[in-house]
Amino acid sequence: MNIESYLANWKNRIDEKLDEYLPSPETYPETLSRAMRYTVLAGGKRIRPILLITTYQLCGGKNVDEIFPVACALEFIHSYSLIHDDLPSIDNDDYRRGLLSSHKKFGEDIAILAGDALFSHAFYTIAESYIAPKKKDEILKTLTFAIGNKGIIGGQIKDVETDPTKRNPKLLRYIHSHKTAIFFSAACEMGGILAEVDSNIITHLRKGGLFMGMAFQIIDDVIDVEGVMEEAGKDINSDENKLTYPSIYGVGHSKEIAKRYTQISMKHLKNINNESDLLEGIILFLLRRMK
Amino acid sequence: MNIESYLANWKNRIDEKLDEYLPSPETYPETLSRAMRYTVLAGGKRIRPILLITTYQLCGGKNVDEIFPVACALEFIHSYSLIHDDLPSIDNDDYRRGLLSSHKKFGEDIAILAGDALFSHAFYTIAESYIAPKKKDEILKTLTFAIGNKGIIGGQIKDVETDPTKRNPKLLRYIHSHKTAIFFSAACEMGGILAEVDSNIITHLRKGGLFMGMAFQIIDDVIDVEGVMEEAGKDINSDENKLTYPSIYGVGHSKEIAKRYTQISMKHLKNINNESDLLEGIILFLLRRMK
Repeated sequence: MNIESYLANWKNRIDEKLDEYLPSPETYPETLSRAMRYTVLAGGKRIRPILLITTYQLCGGKNVDEIFPVACALEFIHSYSLIHDDLPSIDNDDYRRGLLSSHKKFGEDIAILAGDALFSHAFYTIAESYIAPKKKDEILKTLTFAIGNKGIIGGQIKDVETDPTKRNPKLLRYIHSHKTAIFFSAACEMGGILAEVDSNIITHLRKGGLFMGMAFQIIDDVIDVEGVMEEAGKDINSDENKLTYPSIYGVGHSKEIAKRYTQISMKHLKNINNESDLLEGIILFLLRRMK
Repeated sequence: MNIESYLANWKNRIDEKLDEYLPSPETYPETLSRAMRYTVLAGGKRIRPILLITTYQLCGGKNVDEIFPVACALEFIHSYSLIHDDLPSIDNDDYRRGLLSSHKKFGEDIAILAGDALFSHAFYTIAESYIAPKKKDEILKTLTFAIGNKGIIGGQIKDVETDPTKRNPKLLRYIHSHKTAIFFSAACEMGGILAEVDSNIITHLRKGGLFMGMAFQIIDDVIDVEGVMEEAGKDINSDENKLTYPSIYGVGHSKEIAKRYTQISMKHLKNINNESDLLEGIILFLLRRMK
């Protein structure tokens, strides 16, 4: 199957489900409902939900309808973290996905609370799903570890408190693996858990997702240096005060590292089954975003 | 049993458990661990965890050790919401529980992320507990509803976007019931769920907790008008730009309303069993905080 249409088809179905699970614009308090919907529905590739669904199906999962709430919860969490990251005291970004960021559109107070509400809504959506409690319990262990102080938020804290003028490759690896890659890893692992695969496959999913996420973040940083605003959908050079792969290794070497991580990722993901070239297709699609 | 010692004993045990479940000060990234610990361990009455434990035991629950993670999760969520509420763009409070608020102590960026991390940590702590998955699933439904857009965050949004000069009793009731009371209600309901009581008792717990929470918030507003900083542990008159019971009804009438809500709460909670005067004791203790 053509990878562009595969991704576009799933993106459309996920967008429909996001719309369904979000509070309607008329849900009281309307300001909150509108702010929650604004950032989630502003677009985005829906990579994390698609990774969850793809690994689930490759692992033999048959009931995609059942896991949509989990897929959407990942996007709610991703959206909350974007809203909070864009705040004036953190990254101070005025644009996101080509539109005004939440705090520019709604004000800082509403943006903070809309982020909180999306975070909460992710767990509400999973709690209200029809997934068997035992399986729900397992995915919650993986998810809550990945997004907490030893995961995403740990990465974000080091991102804000690190001096970007000091070359520190080890710290950079910590930031990328925690801020971004651990969430890709969790998405893949959760797909496997939901499909009830063996623990050795879970290990490959976890590692495959991690290296894919590392490659993804490096590519994102490269686009920030090379790209145009239309493509990034956010402020270009917004990372200039950050520790990034291009700032430490230069653009060319960064691309090489991204490719190497992609190969490691694929080595792990090939263990799922013969059709895992679908995942390879997704990774290569992400890589092609680089010029 | 003397109610002061009952509350003090549980507070001590909960404080020990909070310390245990929080990341140690040395856990990397240390800034985040220290900021998470700072607000949670700054003190507080631990009313929500104590309500959960008390209702659990009154409903016949025997394994308090098993439910401590849930009790602490409620306090983590309460702490996250205090940190975000105190931020400059929301309530702009410099003091909390007698100490500098998180953003004054650590800076706004760290405070936002520490709040997020505590929110996440609440779910992590529940996910990692040994409670049976089916029961965990049920309490998560109650909890995630109470803290989301139709619960706490809905109340907070109306709190920030409401014109306090306009007398609007219906809106005030919405703000109090959502910002505060629904969380008391959820704590009592979760205690019942964990003890596996019948659904008619659950209904009484939910309503009893709701009216107790309403009374609690009114008393808090009264203290803010009448009290001294030492007692409130936060900025006095910090609510002067808010819609409150004293601002609408005056202090005397507000106290009457708080007492009436307390009576309604007790009427519901008396249905649990003969010993529910323990809960009455807790409510009366809260009422006595008024001068």
